Amino acid sequence: MKNQFEMVIHNINIATMATTDDYGVIHDAAICINQGKIERIIKQVSQQPDITLDIETAIDGQGGWITPGLIDCHTHLIYGGNRANEFEMRLQGATYQEIAQSGGGIVATVNATRSSSEDELFKLAAKRLSYLIDEGVTSIEIKSGYGLDLKTEQKMLQVAKHLDQFSPVSVSKTFLGAHTVPPEFKGQDDAYIDLVCETMMPHLHQLGLIDCVDAFCENVGFTTAQTERVFQAAKQLGLPVKLHAEQLSDLGGSALASQYDAWSVDHLEYLSEHDIPLLKNSGTVATLLPGAFYFLNESQLPPIDGLRKHNVPIAIATDSNPGTSPCLSLLLMMNMATTLFKLTPHEALAGVTRHAAKALRIDEKVGMVKEGMQADLVLWDIETPAELSYRMAGNPCRAVIKNGKVILNKLPTEQ
Amino acid sequence: MKNQFEMVIHNINIATMATTDDYGVIHDAAICINQGKIERIIKQVSQQPDITLDIETAIDGQGGWITPGLIDCHTHLIYGGNRANEFEMRLQGATYQEIAQSGGGIVATVNATRSSSEDELFKLAAKRLSYLIDEGVTSIEIKSGYGLDLKTEQKMLQVAKHLDQFSPVSVSKTFLGAHTVPPEFKGQDDAYIDLVCETMMPHLHQLGLIDCVDAFCENVGFTTAQTERVFQAAKQLGLPVKLHAEQLSDLGGSALASQYDAWSVDHLEYLSEHDIPLLKNSGTVATLLPGAFYFLNESQLPPIDGLRKHNVPIAIATDSNPGTSPCLSLLLMMNMATTLFKLTPHEALAGVTRHAAKALRIDEKVGMVKEGMQADLVLWDIETPAELSYRMAGNPCRAVIKNGKVILNKLPTEQ
Ligand SMILES: [Zn+2]
Ligand SMILES: [Zn+2]
Repeated sequence: MKNQFEMVIHNINIATMATTDDYGVIHDAAICINQGKIERIIKQVSQQPDITLDIETAIDGQGGWITPGLIDCHTHLIYGGNRANEFEMRLQGATYQEIAQSGGGIVATVNATRSSSEDELFKLAAKRLSYLIDEGVTSIEIKSGYGLDLKTEQKMLQVAKHLDQFSPVSVSKTFLGAHTVPPEFKGQDDAYIDLVCETMMPHLHQLGLIDCVDAFCENVGFTTAQTERVFQAAKQLGLPVKLHAEQLSDLGGSALASQYDAWSVDHLEYLSEHDIPLLKNSGTVATLLPGAFYFLNESQLPPIDGLRKHNVPIAIATDSNPGTSPCLSLLLMMNMATTLFKLTPHEALAGVTRHAAKALRIDEKVGMVKEGMQADLVLWDIETPAELSYRMAGNPCRAVIKNGKVILNKLPTEQ
Repeated sequence: MKNQFEMVIHNINIATMATTDDYGVIHDAAICINQGKIERIIKQVSQQPDITLDIETAIDGQGGWITPGLIDCHTHLIYGGNRANEFEMRLQGATYQEIAQSGGGIVATVNATRSSSEDELFKLAAKRLSYLIDEGVTSIEIKSGYGLDLKTEQKMLQVAKHLDQFSPVSVSKTFLGAHTVPPEFKGQDDAYIDLVCETMMPHLHQLGLIDCVDAFCENVGFTTAQTERVFQAAKQLGLPVKLHAEQLSDLGGSALASQYDAWSVDHLEYLSEHDIPLLKNSGTVATLLPGAFYFLNESQLPPIDGLRKHNVPIAIATDSNPGTSPCLSLLLMMNMATTLFKLTPHEALAGVTRHAAKALRIDEKVGMVKEGMQADLVLWDIETPAELSYRMAGNPCRAVIKNGKVILNKLPTEQ
């Protein structure tokens, strides 16, 4: 094996996530990487005397666990300002809906984002991203939606593009022009949807800034009719869609999204059991966002058993955003998905690896530890994969590998 | 000011926590430290042209915020083993009480702790402690209670003592022999209490290993009568007491504890409004443990309004333990105290500083930023103190100072 591979990680256990019902564990393993890809996975290394490792280029995993690089498939990571003050307000009794309806909340972030330069937004988002990378995130989705005018939506998506180019991780860029109605369109929701569909979307698509189109379909957001107009416009441009749906009420957004073969529908606390088979048929991932559920003190649980019964893939994401989930930890979301939503630790890990990959349609390349796939890997100082969900903070990430390159190394040096 | 102080931190805002109803904010400040103590706090530094800072020894806080060093006043940080598997079990439907009653749960940790060497336990606990220090913890309480025999209780308290000596933080050592009945005393609770009171406590006290005595008074723990025997034994040795009380039911443990001038009563979800004035009268701190509340999916909230009304100081702690709060983040506890218990961000910060200091009776030395007090300080990359509670993970700690010495420095270097 000497010098045959650019990188070899040995003395590891692997939770490959390449099987559907368990972690796909391989003990006593080694992973051989060439040209950014997993070229070979060796089992029972210590029982194969013909294998000799080139210690110079090998990484000693010190008996830890390797999982696929984590994927955060739903974030609003790019924004200006700080809403800690609103948080203090909310503790004095104001509800999220009251804040939304009074023009507070998201509008504060829109104003701060509009008045921030592209460079400022990049620095803020890169700092937030660094916390996620610290916990093993190697791919992330980021939405626009705090600009709500062409100029600022473009600025946000350009920042997302620059993060894809200049940060160590991959970024999937989502256009969320239909996030909320901006102050200057107050009471003219349909006119704003015109702007989103007829001006913003085609322009931003032409600039190559849109991977997928999203909308916020909710009683405090857009109607299903307005959402469908956004989906129609996307379809005409050949762009895929996804949807914020059924977070606070059941408008039938998920059923609509399934008609447009949405990549994912996200939140889903109020999803009707009746609509679940539609998601299965359209290959739509159910993305759960326990951070927002927790932060808003919701009690309505998403229909987990129904999703399980119909084999709808469940993803988990941070929904990182300043208003309803100021969260910078995908591990904490795994803990909340298990503790609050009663997912199993295996479902939670699948939710931030293979199912999150599917939610972003990057599952041919990443989301599993498998020969031929991209070498996006995390090394953890844990005894069992369940520990990733069990722990409440205390980040056990020891190394992160993206595309075959070490982008984070916290392995203790030998003594 | 040149060379007058061993350390000067400037370009900072301070949340002193030295006033009762607000953060005690000082903007544009500098803190001057000598011999481990805060010798001088300078306000409006930039308006005082006669102040010149010796750049060589000064720390530039880069406009961040200083708070008192955080204090985790209730932990079970020393233990062997891992209970991630039990976590998976619980997701299959077993309740905490069922696990406790079936001899599972804590007994697994007792066995693992008994069979671990002192050196192993030290390494495990030191690693856990390092996560807490990473977030600004400078003082911590650690309980015994997974030994339940003299030898192992002594081993645990010796590890706590060594952590006090060889880690950067201060450790308060709590004897929790009356945590649960060990397997070999099954059905002989009172005989085990004899052992705790007549053998363990005097012996461990003689070795100087006990700062305070604790017990677990609960329907799945010890009765108030048994708890009182523990308190009586402590009183005879001149040792102070505290109590795990009213977590799952109201046995009147807090009322009993107040008769013994307990330092704190901890958990308190089922505390009766009627007993709150007793705590005020005895100077007992109410320590809330939102991590256990969250992890066990409890819904009964502690009587926060009653505690406020009677001005009982409220502390917040991790309760870090493998069975009911596998938590290594005091910041997450501040977020849960605000999000789940509806404390204000100010109450949460007081809960991990001045009130936690009072819970450990170290409030004459630490818990505030005040001239004459010990220089236990944390520097945060935040815009307002409320942000410490608002954020869900994403640790903004940039430097930790203990006794006037920098024990952690993550300040970005100048570019
Ligand atoms: Zn969202
Ligand atoms: Zn405890």
